[in-house]
Amino acid sequence: MVNNKRIVLIGAGNVATHLGLALQAKGCEIVQVYSRTEESASELAEHLQVPYTISLVEVSVDADLYIVAVKDAVLQDVIPSLVKGREDALFVHTAGSIPMDVWKTSARRYGVLYPMQTFSKLRKVDFTSVSFFVEASGCEELVLLKELAMSLSPKVYEANSEQRRYLHLAAVFACNFTNHMYALSASLLEKQGLPFDAMLPLIDETARKVHELPPAQAQTGPAIRRDENVMDKHLAMLLEEPSMKEIYEKISKNIQEL
Amino acid sequence: MVNNKRIVLIGAGNVATHLGLALQAKGCEIVQVYSRTEESASELAEHLQVPYTISLVEVSVDADLYIVAVKDAVLQDVIPSLVKGREDALFVHTAGSIPMDVWKTSARRYGVLYPMQTFSKLRKVDFTSVSFFVEASGCEELVLLKELAMSLSPKVYEANSEQRRYLHLAAVFACNFTNHMYALSASLLEKQGLPFDAMLPLIDETARKVHELPPAQAQTGPAIRRDENVMDKHLAMLLEEPSMKEIYEKISKNIQEL
Repeated sequence: MVNNKRIVLIGAGNVATHLGLALQAKGCEIVQVYSRTEESASELAEHLQVPYTISLVEVSVDADLYIVAVKDAVLQDVIPSLVKGREDALFVHTAGSIPMDVWKTSARRYGVLYPMQTFSKLRKVDFTSVSFFVEASGCEELVLLKELAMSLSPKVYEANSEQRRYLHLAAVFACNFTNHMYALSASLLEKQGLPFDAMLPLIDETARKVHELPPAQAQTGPAIRRDENVMDKHLAMLLEEPSMKEIYEKISKNIQEL
Repeated sequence: MVNNKRIVLIGAGNVATHLGLALQAKGCEIVQVYSRTEESASELAEHLQVPYTISLVEVSVDADLYIVAVKDAVLQDVIPSLVKGREDALFVHTAGSIPMDVWKTSARRYGVLYPMQTFSKLRKVDFTSVSFFVEASGCEELVLLKELAMSLSPKVYEANSEQRRYLHLAAVFACNFTNHMYALSASLLEKQGLPFDAMLPLIDETARKVHELPPAQAQTGPAIRRDENVMDKHLAMLLEEPSMKEIYEKISKNIQEL
């Protein structure tokens, strides 16, 4: 059973916070939080009502599972010191773009637990609608990680490291870049004194549509209609926003190519 | 009351089809459909169980309201022949990007009824969650158009022509370009044999988030974190997709600028 595992969270950012709170709510025992910055460490530790440390040496040595959710650039540096003296434990990271093999030379039992979601500190996450992708060094570890993920969400998939880095790239387009399209839309409306709220029904319908139609079939608008007249007017409206104009041109062209 | 008005639909594309069906369902009398192409005209006419014509001369002369939902480039050509002999009627177009004044030299009573939504032939539209933007030549016409729009949706706003063309441009970003981000995401997943369905929870959450946070505050991902390491890896993965690579670069740069 997963809920008798003793878990240490390495990292105290958005992913560690939301994952930690959700696992604790499911009965898992979070025993400690580590973060390089005292402010983040203490904030999450307080949320979870557990101790924290800002020194890797002081990380508990007798946990069963270490969940590492730190910046990608930091992960490599953390691994050797973290694993040392804790060789029997299971180590996982949560980053979509980092291969499982980063653990290979240090750890014996390791894996990846990648929740493909957009986490903001300010917003509660409903994990029951998060897709999890898991990968592990062995069969026993895979079973445990699947069980852990399935305690949070019914949408648990296996994905190898190669698939996962494409998942992460695909998520950047579907989430981060999509959100930026919303942001550009909001900035245009703001300049005209129009409420962004008026755009929400269209945003919702655009998302709902691709539950039923493949996105390429769901495409509408001047680019796919090849309505040069409208596109020229739009580009003229963006003359004072050269970056937005360039984005408009590139995406429109790419819609027509696809 | 709007539901004793006799309405002619000029155009038989996605907007005319969905709007016509919705108005008829609300008790409005659609008396005729016009389209240049017989196939579209007859298809929509059959849906609505009304007569159709492919000749502007044969368009009914005694309707109260002519709703023109044709391609932007065609609108200007249609107006003079449509208004001639029907000078007492109210004429509206549904295009976000065309100013109301296109009617000025021909018609006496005119306006705009802009449903800001993405219409696909294959998908039913729930008009109760569509934002409508109306504008009219006079007070009486404005009241009638508001009433007509409010029979379909509670979200009815007034917007002048200048505001409306920015609305349309903003909608291209929030809907058409967003959908293209979904399409690029889907193409990446397909190449890895991964189901696009796994991306839907993330797409939904990305849309839900901006109901609570302004998009600029909701932004996550490698660009806003300035995680050059991840971005470099992503760009390397897109080497064989130069258009996608360029889009990745431009949007990431713009996220950092905003």
